[in-house]
Amino acid sequence: MKLARKDILGIRDLAVEEINLILDTAESFIEVSTREIKKVPTLRGVTVMNLFYEPSTRTRTSFEIAAKRLSADTINISTATSSVVKGETFIDTAKNLEAMNPDIIVLRHSAAGAPHMLSRVVRQSVINAGDGAHEHPTQALLDMMTIREKKKRIAGLKVSIVGDIAHSRVARSNIYGLTKMGAKVTVGGPSTMMPRFIDRLGVEVHHHVDDAIRDADIIMMLRIQTERQDMSVFPSLREYANLFGLNRKRVALAKEDVIIMHPGPMNRGVEISPDVADGPYSVILDQVTNGVAVRMALLYLLSGGN
Amino acid sequence: MKLARKDILGIRDLAVEEINLILDTAESFIEVSTREIKKVPTLRGVTVMNLFYEPSTRTRTSFEIAAKRLSADTINISTATSSVVKGETFIDTAKNLEAMNPDIIVLRHSAAGAPHMLSRVVRQSVINAGDGAHEHPTQALLDMMTIREKKKRIAGLKVSIVGDIAHSRVARSNIYGLTKMGAKVTVGGPSTMMPRFIDRLGVEVHHHVDDAIRDADIIMMLRIQTERQDMSVFPSLREYANLFGLNRKRVALAKEDVIIMHPGPMNRGVEISPDVADGPYSVILDQVTNGVAVRMALLYLLSGGN
Amino acid sequence: MKLARKDILGIRDLAVEEINLILDTAESFIEVSTREIKKVPTLRGVTVMNLFYEPSTRTRTSFEIAAKRLSADTINISTATSSVVKGETFIDTAKNLEAMNPDIIVLRHSAAGAPHMLSRVVRQSVINAGDGAHEHPTQALLDMMTIREKKKRIAGLKVSIVGDIAHSRVARSNIYGLTKMGAKVTVGGPSTMMPRFIDRLGVEVHHHVDDAIRDADIIMMLRIQTERQDMSVFPSLREYANLFGLNRKRVALAKEDVIIMHPGPMNRGVEISPDVADGPYSVILDQVTNGVAVRMALLYLLSGGN
Repeated sequence: MKLARKDILGIRDLAVEEINLILDTAESFIEVSTREIKKVPTLRGVTVMNLFYEPSTRTRTSFEIAAKRLSADTINISTATSSVVKGETFIDTAKNLEAMNPDIIVLRHSAAGAPHMLSRVVRQSVINAGDGAHEHPTQALLDMMTIREKKKRIAGLKVSIVGDIAHSRVARSNIYGLTKMGAKVTVGGPSTMMPRFIDRLGVEVHHHVDDAIRDADIIMMLRIQTERQDMSVFPSLREYANLFGLNRKRVALAKEDVIIMHPGPMNRGVEISPDVADGPYSVILDQVTNGVAVRMALLYLLSGGN
Repeated sequence: MKLARKDILGIRDLAVEEINLILDTAESFIEVSTREIKKVPTLRGVTVMNLFYEPSTRTRTSFEIAAKRLSADTINISTATSSVVKGETFIDTAKNLEAMNPDIIVLRHSAAGAPHMLSRVVRQSVINAGDGAHEHPTQALLDMMTIREKKKRIAGLKVSIVGDIAHSRVARSNIYGLTKMGAKVTVGGPSTMMPRFIDRLGVEVHHHVDDAIRDADIIMMLRIQTERQDMSVFPSLREYANLFGLNRKRVALAKEDVIIMHPGPMNRGVEISPDVADGPYSVILDQVTNGVAVRMALLYLLSGGN
Repeated sequence: MKLARKDILGIRDLAVEEINLILDTAESFIEVSTREIKKVPTLRGVTVMNLFYEPSTRTRTSFEIAAKRLSADTINISTATSSVVKGETFIDTAKNLEAMNPDIIVLRHSAAGAPHMLSRVVRQSVINAGDGAHEHPTQALLDMMTIREKKKRIAGLKVSIVGDIAHSRVARSNIYGLTKMGAKVTVGGPSTMMPRFIDRLGVEVHHHVDDAIRDADIIMMLRIQTERQDMSVFPSLREYANLFGLNRKRVALAKEDVIIMHPGPMNRGVEISPDVADGPYSVILDQVTNGVAVRMALLYLLSGGN
């Protein structure tokens, strides 16, 4: 089976069969990263451009490693070191990069919808590596891959997502993906961090974290973006930790074999206590490993692999 | 035929036969970028260092893609992320890089003459990727390649270059190259943006843009560097746009089959109106595509290819 | 013979046989950098991560070139362009990178001991590329390689290290290495730049540079870190140059065939006069060349080569 689409812009527009294809392909790539020679010639001659308008360590590195393991060439462009700020429009930058004939453009941008705009103006495949508070599809795919790996299924599981739901592209992509795959999704967080009309997304909403995570198969904690934090949203980090942070006592409310996820980077002692982050239920580092495999799968499938 | 020189420092010192050789070679490389596997093993084991003392997206990316399509290794060094500012002299930095045995050093520097100085102290080939307001030879070569591609010749054509001639390395390199290749070059711009002794370069000078572009085969608009802009040079961007910006009405003064060029990044609505930039005469994105091919040709020829 | 260790954290814990093995291996790699095709397939499929928490041109470039000459893939992460500052702990960053399955992590960090901490939490090989004022083992190895190359031995030679001994990781690593290899090490510098208990390291201490370098076979000048310089340590750069700078007159106090070393970047006219830096005794650029070979050797040996 082939992935019959040009781009990966969001989970919202992916069909269940497409998600399954991506996860199956990613699983088959896990093995490459454990070989002695961690490289296959599959994408030799393919150029992957990482175009990052927001700083990122793990996502950019993950894409770069994924590309290199497939023998693709990578070009990193980040606003920190480039002249993308010289007054040129985003579309002109895009058309210029297109004219250099890369094959796949990976875009992170602070503006929701930027990858969609890019996709419309360039003939290359576009992968959304996070756009504003909108979507972060590769994160949701690696999360679903991790759930499937640990639980052997997604359908029927109770997944609790806790934190700043309103401003989280990770939450949004996971809500789209997990509900699509048949999971029961519960969200928990202070009302100031809950988007309007959240109930229309087919999730159960709780304002007390204990209610949100009760009997959960999976708890997915979101990062509190302390750098953006505005005291009108929440009085203090300490109060957030007390009311919404995940600690061992709260984990006990979930199923006995619950797994704990976090997209990183973690604020230890804020949204998650260190003993939970490092505890036996935590699959946080498996998520990272699966991230490379998911990105390999996407680069491969968008290049016409099957 | 081989390119019998160590460096590409400027168009001024290139002979007509050398320019033809570079353009012919670049043409033959256009095809590589359209293949499914966009990579040839020609420069395997060659190391290209991109040493950028000024920020750049398109030029650095273009060189990096060019090198990778030829299977060369690339090392990027930019002052934004490195310690080149630690008080070491430029020549010491150069000698240090030389001692690591790269093969070709691509240098962008804000100081006119920096590549020439580099070339004298290192045994490696040096390519000038723009030095101050002096020269930008790879830009002029890709411009000439684009003109030849669209017009099948350069000799005898009327090329009008419009904008801040005094501070433009693009203008200077193109004036050297185009006059050498037999084109008739006209420059237009406010008198405050016209270099002294410009007439000695063998060009026709106009201070009204309409006069400059009348009957032109090619109009080459220069970027107004709004970030450097000093109100003593020009009263306002709006006034500049009115008096010197290229719009559809002005294009009508040129030949019917005129082509419009711009080295990018464009300030839409300042030196060029959006409908002209995106219109049928615009070859701005062809310039970008040809830029990769020209840089492949230079890397290849300087490595001893023929 | 194989290098039976996971990491290179410092010279202090290397045995003489290990140092000899590294230097012998490095010597055999010198030839690769002089070939027309400067690349061997030895480390194909190996991923080297350059994780730099301090800016660096020469060390990062040297590691990157070394890796590429062995056909390894390189991933550069620098705090200047990444989100490593987002509040994540260093160990969490490390565990995340580990989860992406690189093979070797090269770390530069301003905190002494950071590579040791990294080494304890990740299964990958760690190479210390400089940690605070603690160690810079690859610099000391390339220095010892240069001494051996020029003098055919290390044992019995008199090596004078002059400058800010207290804050220099280069000095510390060289003192460990050179005394281990049988050299007689003398240090010279103002008392405010001399570490407490320096005599316990088996070196001779002088506070007058002339005494320190008398009859030296090797003079190793340290960089004065003018950017960190605090006037409580030394009154002025000019006074430093007069009292501790190496000039031609002082060189005459050393052995006739003395060689002059400097780890770079140099402050010409401060710790070293230009005529000495560029003079016949200077082996400063040989150090840089040998740096690539030493790093190739380490990448090779830590990957299981023999």
